[in-house]
Amino acid sequence: MRATVMYGAGDVRVEDVPDPSLREPTDVLLRITRACICGSDLWPYKSMEPVGETGDGARMGHEFIGVVEDVGADVGTLAKGDVVVAPFVFSDGTCDFCDEGLHTSCRHGGFWGAGDVDGGQGEAVRVPHADGTLVKLPVAEDDALMASLLTLSDVYATGHHAAVNAGVAPGKTVAVVGDGAVGLCGVLAAKRLGAEQIIILGRHEDRTSLAREFGATDVVAERGKEATAKVRELTGGDGCHSVLECVGMEDAIVTAIKIARSGGSVGRVGVSQVPSIPLSMESFRRNITISGGIAPARAYIDELLPDVLEGRIEPGRVFDRTLPLDETPDGYRAMNDREAIKVLVRP
Amino acid sequence: MRATVMYGAGDVRVEDVPDPSLREPTDVLLRITRACICGSDLWPYKSMEPVGETGDGARMGHEFIGVVEDVGADVGTLAKGDVVVAPFVFSDGTCDFCDEGLHTSCRHGGFWGAGDVDGGQGEAVRVPHADGTLVKLPVAEDDALMASLLTLSDVYATGHHAAVNAGVAPGKTVAVVGDGAVGLCGVLAAKRLGAEQIIILGRHEDRTSLAREFGATDVVAERGKEATAKVRELTGGDGCHSVLECVGMEDAIVTAIKIARSGGSVGRVGVSQVPSIPLSMESFRRNITISGGIAPARAYIDELLPDVLEGRIEPGRVFDRTLPLDETPDGYRAMNDREAIKVLVRP
Repeated sequence: MRATVMYGAGDVRVEDVPDPSLREPTDVLLRITRACICGSDLWPYKSMEPVGETGDGARMGHEFIGVVEDVGADVGTLAKGDVVVAPFVFSDGTCDFCDEGLHTSCRHGGFWGAGDVDGGQGEAVRVPHADGTLVKLPVAEDDALMASLLTLSDVYATGHHAAVNAGVAPGKTVAVVGDGAVGLCGVLAAKRLGAEQIIILGRHEDRTSLAREFGATDVVAERGKEATAKVRELTGGDGCHSVLECVGMEDAIVTAIKIARSGGSVGRVGVSQVPSIPLSMESFRRNITISGGIAPARAYIDELLPDVLEGRIEPGRVFDRTLPLDETPDGYRAMNDREAIKVLVRP
Repeated sequence: MRATVMYGAGDVRVEDVPDPSLREPTDVLLRITRACICGSDLWPYKSMEPVGETGDGARMGHEFIGVVEDVGADVGTLAKGDVVVAPFVFSDGTCDFCDEGLHTSCRHGGFWGAGDVDGGQGEAVRVPHADGTLVKLPVAEDDALMASLLTLSDVYATGHHAAVNAGVAPGKTVAVVGDGAVGLCGVLAAKRLGAEQIIILGRHEDRTSLAREFGATDVVAERGKEATAKVRELTGGDGCHSVLECVGMEDAIVTAIKIARSGGSVGRVGVSQVPSIPLSMESFRRNITISGGIAPARAYIDELLPDVLEGRIEPGRVFDRTLPLDETPDGYRAMNDREAIKVLVRP
């Protein structure tokens, strides 16, 4: 089959790889119908050491929807032909961490594209622990809702995780640091959870416009100290109860802490690019909670699905480009050049 | 009156200072009957730059119980003769932060010993915002419970804040990093909140013995990687749901994060001695929440008081030395040399 492989920074190829097949009785085989490129895929796209002539590339992609093609003997909840969405980490759904809603720490879970597990930017994937991992969708494989349903795999679930960890609730003031696809989904999540004021920090007008449509009440284009001053001005001097940190770079984390109201929370989902979290003394003095991390998307899909199915929220609007599988490398380039917010791939 | 003044590292003196008097109609004047030395007083005791021959020293002490001697015209809840405990930060009790239980961020609050406010290690103190700040105690000024009641001012409330921020609840596994007075009170707080397993990390046998009496189920005397390994061994490999960080040094924070169970929380109350919180990527990957900070003792006194009054918990056992006011400097020395866990001062 065809699949996406990264060989070094800027070097993404779509090439022939072995066809996946069932290995464990808890596997299913999935034909992928929608996949996409994640902001986190851009970190290795910017920095991966070349693997060299003889090295193995990295199989890419961890967000996808597909149709079940074959089912292992021990799989109980899925049948051939089912349309399913996969969270960006697979998990058994039965261990104590899964019970607690932290499927990203599942005792038998793991990442797509790691070891002998296929990546999602390809034609097919073997899904380990399929009963625990996959969520059946009550739609046909080309339903018009596909883009929004695909966001349940990662980007919208991640925005929601940021909002949950930042303590968003009715009446709260919220800031979202970052106008990438995750930040935009964070706005949507904050709105859905009842936030009163939602300030997005971002400088790209196409993105902040979408943020306004998603529910942002204010846009702060400034950065650094000016951003802090502006957010404080917009919040009566105090900052926000809840800050969603959707970038992961040091500047963004500093800003997130600075604009949090004393006693507030920073929910961070931007993949941490720093060895330590800055402003230890400030967050201590002002009792700011730093929470979040890699989002257990599987824990949220059941809750988030109905609003998407009924069209009340449309996180799929973060996709502003759709490419066939063979053009995936150009999708990486477009996202890296900020030509596209998020690229959907149709194998 | 006599009061404690610090002039530089290791240079603490008890000397004559101006008698306090009412200034604002919301003040009361308090004759101090019990005070004490805080672990946080040892930071300047170790590091304060000498103020020089002509410089002003720093008025010390922020934990005290006293008897109301004079009452401002606008004070409504207190009368001459009342025995009261003061939290270690004064606060108006009426602003939005106070309403939210974050009295340490009160819009009109402040610290004892700062500016023109008296310190608590002295014979008397002017109490700003007395209605909001002070809590009346239904006991006589020499009641046998005085030591335990005094801990509501800071050390026990701070241990409780760590436990609350670490998410301690019935059935949880808990670790307490640090066997100082705050750590010991953290054990007591964790026990009171229903923790199932309470592991204290400390190397001083007199202290860890008291920790066991306070409810610790396990003692880990190792440090660093060995401590992490030991705590993991004691918790089936997973670490603890709730970690109370009661030190503030980098090593302690690293250990706290390492021994937290994925999805767990570190409640930090050790005054942060680091510019940034280490292990950003690890806490991100494992969804560990970093919470806590300077404890809003005032928010907790009403809840904690009954158990102390009825003798069900005895946090006052952290005091292992009592000195008259004039010997306060020797109390600093004794705590700094780890001869004493915590020193009570009787003006």
